[in-house]
Amino acid sequence: MPIITLTTDFGEKDHYAGAVKGAIYTELADVKIVDISHSVSPFHITEAAYIIQNAYNSFPPGTIHIIGIDSELNPENKHIAVLLDGHYFICANNGIISMLANEINPEKIVEINIHNKIVTNFPVLDVFVKVACHIARGGTLEIIGKKIETIKQITGVKPAINIENGQIIGTVIYIDNYGNVISNITRATFEDVGKGRDFKVTARRASFTKIHSHYSDAINFDVPAEKRDEDGKKIALWNSSNYLELSIYKSNPATVGSAASLFGLEYRDTIVVKFD
Amino acid sequence: MPIITLTTDFGEKDHYAGAVKGAIYTELADVKIVDISHSVSPFHITEAAYIIQNAYNSFPPGTIHIIGIDSELNPENKHIAVLLDGHYFICANNGIISMLANEINPEKIVEINIHNKIVTNFPVLDVFVKVACHIARGGTLEIIGKKIETIKQITGVKPAINIENGQIIGTVIYIDNYGNVISNITRATFEDVGKGRDFKVTARRASFTKIHSHYSDAINFDVPAEKRDEDGKKIALWNSSNYLELSIYKSNPATVGSAASLFGLEYRDTIVVKFD
Amino acid sequence: MPIITLTTDFGEKDHYAGAVKGAIYTELADVKIVDISHSVSPFHITEAAYIIQNAYNSFPPGTIHIIGIDSELNPENKHIAVLLDGHYFICANNGIISMLANEINPEKIVEINIHNKIVTNFPVLDVFVKVACHIARGGTLEIIGKKIETIKQITGVKPAINIENGQIIGTVIYIDNYGNVISNITRATFEDVGKGRDFKVTARRASFTKIHSHYSDAINFDVPAEKRDEDGKKIALWNSSNYLELSIYKSNPATVGSAASLFGLEYRDTIVVKFD
Repeated sequence: MPIITLTTDFGEKDHYAGAVKGAIYTELADVKIVDISHSVSPFHITEAAYIIQNAYNSFPPGTIHIIGIDSELNPENKHIAVLLDGHYFICANNGIISMLANEINPEKIVEINIHNKIVTNFPVLDVFVKVACHIARGGTLEIIGKKIETIKQITGVKPAINIENGQIIGTVIYIDNYGNVISNITRATFEDVGKGRDFKVTARRASFTKIHSHYSDAINFDVPAEKRDEDGKKIALWNSSNYLELSIYKSNPATVGSAASLFGLEYRDTIVVKFD
Repeated sequence: MPIITLTTDFGEKDHYAGAVKGAIYTELADVKIVDISHSVSPFHITEAAYIIQNAYNSFPPGTIHIIGIDSELNPENKHIAVLLDGHYFICANNGIISMLANEINPEKIVEINIHNKIVTNFPVLDVFVKVACHIARGGTLEIIGKKIETIKQITGVKPAINIENGQIIGTVIYIDNYGNVISNITRATFEDVGKGRDFKVTARRASFTKIHSHYSDAINFDVPAEKRDEDGKKIALWNSSNYLELSIYKSNPATVGSAASLFGLEYRDTIVVKFD
Repeated sequence: MPIITLTTDFGEKDHYAGAVKGAIYTELADVKIVDISHSVSPFHITEAAYIIQNAYNSFPPGTIHIIGIDSELNPENKHIAVLLDGHYFICANNGIISMLANEINPEKIVEINIHNKIVTNFPVLDVFVKVACHIARGGTLEIIGKKIETIKQITGVKPAINIENGQIIGTVIYIDNYGNVISNITRATFEDVGKGRDFKVTARRASFTKIHSHYSDAINFDVPAEKRDEDGKKIALWNSSNYLELSIYKSNPATVGSAASLFGLEYRDTIVVKFD
């Protein structure tokens, strides 16, 4: 029996996530349900896209991912089920998996058409659960939808590249629990454009001329611990998902601040890499 | 093996929920535990009542619901186990399931009497887990408690109805993750009192003359998307639990505000429906 | 198949916890994963130590506890696996389990040495999951690490005792979801030093001459409920983990305040017990 994951903006308090789990177990007593996140900012498609992109491939092939963000059915927001990289994604056609689909071609996309005449305002419970259980039982996508060829794109998830000026103009796409600032500049794009040249990363109040691999690279361990100012060191690094991330070593957003607060960076702000 | 659900005000950080899950698995290795919510506001019985009422019936019959809110045993706060609508509820007799019991008659209520002489200050761990596992193994309520006939009521969960003036005077019982304001006025009460007449809903800074069925009804999809002011449209609707809800289309409480903040509505505030 | 628990500072929003669960299920489809907490304050070793100490022994022996706090491998932060009280703990050697190890001698400690040459900056996913699954399959600690004798200590988790002055000088080690203030003074230490004498507990704006066993002891149930001022009563008690805790009866930190806010107490503040 495959795993069903949940990524939503339901929050931690309301009954929505609990109700969805109950409905799944009512249909399939033996399935495994895994919460990826219920704390996506309300209606924040880019956040959800980033989270699901970086979580999905730790799961075994055949896993079914329900994404419940901005999923009310309306003339401009249809429901889709997508087979991509051996995983199933069930969501609204609002761009959420375009970030993923930009990198890996979907094997199959269907527009879900199993809605009853009366559609409720809780489609994750009423529609997505049914589709997920259908797939978990081994059903095919063709039975619950009609094939379509393309999905809706979201803008701003790819950086602009200016080859002549040797520039990558990226933006902040995510700020994580530690206040780390994550850009849309991937290691692959960086290496492709930079070809080993020296560079400078600039983002409002911060600039960097080196991109590290570990947070600990902010610290010089040759200096004895008691003589070092360990915390509060800024660093640029390739994060575990290979995105360019700006960080403050061991920051705590609730107390001393973080890369986001100390560099003054928010979602959609610009991060530029300029090569020599 | 049935499902055991948890609805508490333990929060997401402390060890309480983890300890309870460990204790359940120690007794019953094969049970399924589902978190409904651990983020109920501390000691907030109405919130808990609303959450459990709207989550429980997505679960299969026979599910056992542990509700850990204000559950310390004292002379005025006994522990009960209730069979209602085919589901089991274990909680303090503090009104938490009176909202549920007002709509559906409990099949059986017992006052739990398996406490040892020394009662701890963590009754969910020490008492509720034992009762839940007893029921999960097929044990009857009579073995862990003595039958009682009535449970404690909470006030304010039913709206006042003034038939002569054609008025329903409700209150805010819950504010959800999106800042949606949920009243205690159900669709059934509304239709019963209104009998199809025109009406006006008034709640501090907001008023409505129509109650919709979907959030998207706030938007006129005949106007092209680029010419519309999509966000920030206010709407009254019947939510997925059939309560009258006031909402702002695609609101985000943390950024642009929500129905709660923009209409200036808090828990216990008044919402009036006046029929012509 | 044993249980694997997770205690981290990943937060509720990011993909980190979801990715870790996916990786575990990919290796071991039948294991049970239980979240203890993902809301430890970033890099807060004492909080994590308190949470894991008070959650672990509700789980059955043989349970494997992954603790993902400040776990990046560096010359001063090695990875360890510890067998203690029949449970396995996988974490960085940063003091997190020294609180536990001060009370119960570890049966075995190994420094993990299964890292590949290239170590990522997401060691919980890359290293701890592998170690946990190895142990869950019945593997021994010797295969994934080399035996060591001692672990790193954290300071401030034990109170200072002044026998001559009849004083215990403790500190605040944790503030829970209800704003209850938890000290590092255990009941055992208190009884050992006090030997039944009268005493006064002092903590900034609050003092107490009695330590209770239940929150409800703050209330005099002989007075009828309608004549009592139920809420807002201060109380000192032995909490469910037998630590001295300062509390306000039925406090809500988000509204009326809590012991922490009303007594003006924060993490690391001093709490003194003076015996007559």
